Amino acid sequence: MAPPLKVLALNGTLKTSKGDQASSTDRMIGLLMAGFARHGISGETIRLADHQILPGVTSDEGPDDAWPAIREKILAADILIAGTPVWMGQPSSVIKRALERMDAFISEKDSEGRMPSYGKIAAVAVVGNEDGAHHVSAELFQALNDVGFSIAPNAVSYWVGQAMGSTDFRNLDEIPGTVASAAKMVVETTVHLARLLRDNPYPSVK
Amino acid sequence: MAPPLKVLALNGTLKTSKGDQASSTDRMIGLLMAGFARHGISGETIRLADHQILPGVTSDEGPDDAWPAIREKILAADILIAGTPVWMGQPSSVIKRALERMDAFISEKDSEGRMPSYGKIAAVAVVGNEDGAHHVSAELFQALNDVGFSIAPNAVSYWVGQAMGSTDFRNLDEIPGTVASAAKMVVETTVHLARLLRDNPYPSVK
Amino acid sequence: MAPPLKVLALNGTLKTSKGDQASSTDRMIGLLMAGFARHGISGETIRLADHQILPGVTSDEGPDDAWPAIREKILAADILIAGTPVWMGQPSSVIKRALERMDAFISEKDSEGRMPSYGKIAAVAVVGNEDGAHHVSAELFQALNDVGFSIAPNAVSYWVGQAMGSTDFRNLDEIPGTVASAAKMVVETTVHLARLLRDNPYPSVK
Amino acid sequence: MAPPLKVLALNGTLKTSKGDQASSTDRMIGLLMAGFARHGISGETIRLADHQILPGVTSDEGPDDAWPAIREKILAADILIAGTPVWMGQPSSVIKRALERMDAFISEKDSEGRMPSYGKIAAVAVVGNEDGAHHVSAELFQALNDVGFSIAPNAVSYWVGQAMGSTDFRNLDEIPGTVASAAKMVVETTVHLARLLRDNPYPSVK
Repeated sequence: MAPPLKVLALNGTLKTSKGDQASSTDRMIGLLMAGFARHGISGETIRLADHQILPGVTSDEGPDDAWPAIREKILAADILIAGTPVWMGQPSSVIKRALERMDAFISEKDSEGRMPSYGKIAAVAVVGNEDGAHHVSAELFQALNDVGFSIAPNAVSYWVGQAMGSTDFRNLDEIPGTVASAAKMVVETTVHLARLLRDNPYPSVK
Repeated sequence: MAPPLKVLALNGTLKTSKGDQASSTDRMIGLLMAGFARHGISGETIRLADHQILPGVTSDEGPDDAWPAIREKILAADILIAGTPVWMGQPSSVIKRALERMDAFISEKDSEGRMPSYGKIAAVAVVGNEDGAHHVSAELFQALNDVGFSIAPNAVSYWVGQAMGSTDFRNLDEIPGTVASAAKMVVETTVHLARLLRDNPYPSVK
Repeated sequence: MAPPLKVLALNGTLKTSKGDQASSTDRMIGLLMAGFARHGISGETIRLADHQILPGVTSDEGPDDAWPAIREKILAADILIAGTPVWMGQPSSVIKRALERMDAFISEKDSEGRMPSYGKIAAVAVVGNEDGAHHVSAELFQALNDVGFSIAPNAVSYWVGQAMGSTDFRNLDEIPGTVASAAKMVVETTVHLARLLRDNPYPSVK
Repeated sequence: MAPPLKVLALNGTLKTSKGDQASSTDRMIGLLMAGFARHGISGETIRLADHQILPGVTSDEGPDDAWPAIREKILAADILIAGTPVWMGQPSSVIKRALERMDAFISEKDSEGRMPSYGKIAAVAVVGNEDGAHHVSAELFQALNDVGFSIAPNAVSYWVGQAMGSTDFRNLDEIPGTVASAAKMVVETTVHLARLLRDNPYPSVK
């Protein structure tokens, strides 16, 4: 029997966990993680701002670089959640840093032309006060697809408030039904695709 | 004394005015137009979907092309409002068509290297049910700047509802105070810049 | 035995085929079509500018609307190629129109919450004189994913020239090796995913 | 007589200057700086990756934060150049960090509703191996405009190579004539606008 699938979530909030600051992005990631757990799929969330990820586009930028350890966890997972808050209608600098580091996958193809991410599925979690989730998912889908991830239908779980609002997702009393439904869609399509591709790897693309 | 400034608004809604369909984009444009009127600046709104604007990137695509007449009005105005609804987090195909046609300005420079749009100010009006205003303004700012328009600070007037919402701006009982304030910022900065550039044209850029 | 897969390509060039104008987008689509043919997968390319696709976000906008017939062909295909030239760094108004019309899929879910596009794979073909392929693929991936398509790794086949260049892809003497390799990647990953999902449909997402 | 204008350039390369690594972004910024110098306008370039700019959206994120000193220089300048390489078709995480920190301007308005950036002009410098300059300028224009900067026509100086190329701008033997011309346009329009707004500040926007 195949071992259970594994999920890894990257939380690109600008806040470190020092002082135990709650993160809206974490709440959205948690919603997805709960969905994966119902399928027996467990995993870990990494708060990227807690780690010193050096700027660069290689897999190891030197002795103080926290990326190699995070990269190992990405490679060990079947599903990657890229989570980010929206600032100025765009993804955070923190999640951008992680995406840039995955650019190295392009030069780490195997003998059949496949990146180390081939067969892995990416999904996106986005929260903002007011606007920007579609554009953030566009940028993340494109970057993640460029570096070898597959994407299941409706692969974004998001919440944003009304224009120029200031409510944080972490402070909502209740998660809206529409958000819970969208999160379920992400989980169901992503799990299905992850199982198919685990059992049926991409062939040579050369 | 200098003649009063003129404004032209392009409404990129997907709906024609046949059957007198109210447009949320029109309501947002109207908010800006009322602001301009307080400065004695008047103008016209063109509902683009009512006109047969042919695909292409020249200033005249043939006998049935409605663009040449619209282009004349753009050239006669000091301020251009590009208004659009958000669909799929992106600007509408209708406003995109108008932007493509303005691409021709790039090859219509005068002897000093200035496009016919130099000295004109662009601002943006965006409405959506739920998400996308920042990205829409990013795409419009870039396209309008590429074809020679100047942009004053905070040059977007927008409204979107909460994630996965379905309320239309045209149906709001009252315009939120934050939206009215943002619209005022657009008007005040745009009018100031338009006056300065009308009285002090850009020099040669060659 | 399962019937062979089918592919449909939408060409979003601004040029109609009147006067038999060659399209750079067609050449890129042709490269993908030749790849699919090597797998026994055939299909059709629709030059969208030849058809009167009305603005709107429903599946049928009235008697003169060319969309319903195109929509039928999308639903009959397993793989959809969205092809577009780059204008002003962005997708064309013509391909945007088609995407807007697919927005209707969101309200056409079956009893298990699946859009009519579930199980279909989308890929992207982009050509431009100088710049914009990544952003175009970002916008298309996001829009296509929002309306239910799955996306295989490296799902974009593109060419652009050097900054401020004016060479057209249709006029290149030879297709660069890097472009041919990238097109092969698109074909191989897309075909693999299309077969898997044809044989293993997405489950209920409700 | 008015004092000469000042320019500040932010270089968002992923490379620190340790080991004296040449930066393609620096070369593009240098082209603009030479243009400004012809107008008697001088200034400084800050290599952002050399500084510990903490994640956050306030003007001071604590004792080790390099941002407050950089922010002072921005406020002392009349013209801001935001320079960035393209990675994955998008702006770098390093320039994104600086933009996020300028988000604080929105809550630092004066009694007339004007952000500290009002009256300052922003322009953009972008370099990449192959693709992405238009989208990068779109994201930067929007973010910079949201936080109060004005934008002159054609406010981006860029170079990218052919699709999937790997040439670096720093290694070009000669700067192409088209790039030099575009840089001149950026300089001429930006200087004109900066002078006008220095002498004629934006009025109250409340």
